Formats: sequence, structure tokens, C-alpha cells
Amino acid sequence: MERKSFRKMACPIARSLERIGEWWSILIIRDALHGFTRFDQFQKSLSIAPNTLTRRLNALVDAGVLLRRRYSQRPPRYEYILTDIGRDFRPVLIAMAAWGNRYFAPEGPSVVLMDAKTRRKADPVLVDRRTRRALNERDFVFAAGPAASERTRRRYADVEQNKSTSSPGSSSRVRRKTRRAQ
Amino acid sequence: MERKSFRKMACPIARSLERIGEWWSILIIRDALHGFTRFDQFQKSLSIAPNTLTRRLNALVDAGVLLRRRYSQRPPRYEYILTDIGRDFRPVLIAMAAWGNRYFAPEGPSVVLMDAKTRRKADPVLVDRRTRRALNERDFVFAAGPAASERTRRRYADVEQNKSTSSPGSSSRVRRKTRRAQ
Repeated sequence: MERKSFRKMACPIARSLERIGEWWSILIIRDALHGFTRFDQFQKSLSIAPNTLTRRLNALVDAGVLLRRRYSQRPPRYEYILTDIGRDFRPVLIAMAAWGNRYFAPEGPSVVLMDAKTRRKADPVLVDRRTRRALNERDFVFAAGPAASERTRRRYADVEQNKSTSSPGSSSRVRRKTRRAQ
Repeated sequence: MERKSFRKMACPIARSLERIGEWWSILIIRDALHGFTRFDQFQKSLSIAPNTLTRRLNALVDAGVLLRRRYSQRPPRYEYILTDIGRDFRPVLIAMAAWGNRYFAPEGPSVVLMDAKTRRKADPVLVDRRTRRALNERDFVFAAGPAASERTRRRYADVEQNKSTSSPGSSSRVRRKTRRAQ
């Protein structure tokens, strides 16, 4: 797949994208979380070309998201098991499903997250583990972390200055420093 | 970009991926949430080819994630503002950043989410909005929703049967029905 590598970017989002590889991989992780482990299960679920699936599975194994395990000696057969890294991708999928259901399911949701016992629909929201406060834009910001480079520090210093000098409405976020646009 | 369309899939994750388009788009939304609005701001931040950036911005406008707005009549200049759909993608980015920081930042995190006032680092966790219970795998499952097709219903019925007949360890998730694998 032709695209720029995000590996050298400091941003944790870019690094996650680098590891995942591409869209198919997200759907493969989704299916693996559903309990699928075999090549033909993934293929049937995704209607994906076998060579593409092989490539994506291998990439996910290389990234440490899946573990390839032989389950039959003769003939040799393999299955793909989620590692802890892979299982911990679940919150990303839940957040993505909530977004998709909210905006791109005009006929109503086809897939929902629900309480396994009560069958009551869950409404996912991100909170801080300790304080249980919702991680909304007003109260929580992305900022340079302990391992940030000088460039990353400058970038986030700029962002904060930009936000603090404007009110929270979308139009007020416009920065007036740069003039060229397309 | 050559890839299969996910538009017809019922899965809300697939639909989200369809709308976002590709990796760059996720980083563009990230930058827009940082307050960037202008073409040259995105270009500088991402070191992206101008024609690729133009294509991605247009696709995000078509998807309803960004709004294109003229801010200067002469010469004509445009800025890109997040819509509500775009702003609501933030939980996906927070979850992705947490995953990246956890597994792919061996030198320590370069970017963290923190309380804007106290500067204390946040630890993002997904909970159910009403009950505040953590949405972990044991308690919450994906299941067919009200608009599910027959195929989707069958699929999730299979998944549940599969999970309920096996203990929660990864190896026990293996289904023994299918035999072919690669």
C-alpha cells in the first residue's frame, strides 16, 4: 500500500494508524473480537480477496496485534488470536461504532453495544478513570507529554494559546496569523 | 484510492471508515480539533502533498465532517471548520491516542490528554453514560440492533452462542466448526 509512513511521528494517533496498517485491519480486529480466528471466517465475513487478507493478517501479526498459532500439524493449519495489544483496541472500535450509529445509520442502528445480561443498550462515553469526569473538550486538552520533542512542545503551546484567546464556538477558533489558503 | 467500498456494510464501524476515507483524514480531524482551519496549517502540520490534502479536505467536506467557508472575498480564501459530526469524532481519537501511548511509545508519551486546569493526566476509559459502568468485554457485547438485517442477526446470534459455550480465555474462543485455514 502506497502511503507515507507515520512511524516517525510523535503523535500517538499517528503511531496507532501506522501499526494498524489500513481499514481492513480494523475490521479484522473487529471480527477477532467477535471470536473469529480462522482464515476462512475472516474471508467470509469481509468478502475480502485472499491475498489481501493474508497480507493484512501478516501485518497484524508483525505489529503484535495478532498471534499466529498452529492448531493442526497435519495438514498444517493456523489460527489468529488477539494479543493484549489487539484486545485493547476495543475502545477505539466502540467509539467508532457509536459515531457511525449516531450519524450514518439513518435507518436505525444495525449493531449496538448492550449489557450482556439485561440486553439494555449502552451509551458509550469516555471518562477519566480516576475522577469519572467526562473527557469533553472544555475540560480536557491534548498537551505535550514527558517525552515530547521541542517541536511537539511548541506545537501544543501554540494550540493552547490559540484556544485561550478565543471563545469555544467553532468560528472563533479561526487563527488570523496565516493568510494563505486553498 | 483503490479499495472496496464499505458503504453497503451494516456495521457502524465500517460505515465510519467509509466516511473518513483514509488515514490522512484522521490526522486532519485531529488537527482541526486542535484549532487548525487553513490549508497551509494542515499542510505544515502533516507534511502532506498539496493535491492529497485538497482531495482529503474535499472528501471530508462531502462526508459532512468539515464545512468549507469563504473568509476572504478578494482574493477568495477558504477555511475548513469542523461540523458537529467532525467534533464528535473526538472520542475515537482519544481512544486511539491512549492505545498508541500504551503500546507504541517506549520512550514515554509525547502527547497526553490532561485536565486543562489542574494539568493532571487523564486516563481515558469508556463507560455507559447512564450507569457509569466500564464497557468491558465481559459485561457488554455487540449485538444486532433494531435495523439489523437477517444476515446481521444470524451473525450476532452465532457470535453469542460461540462465546457462551467457551470460557473467556483467548484459546477457548476458537471455533471448531470450520476446518480450512491458511
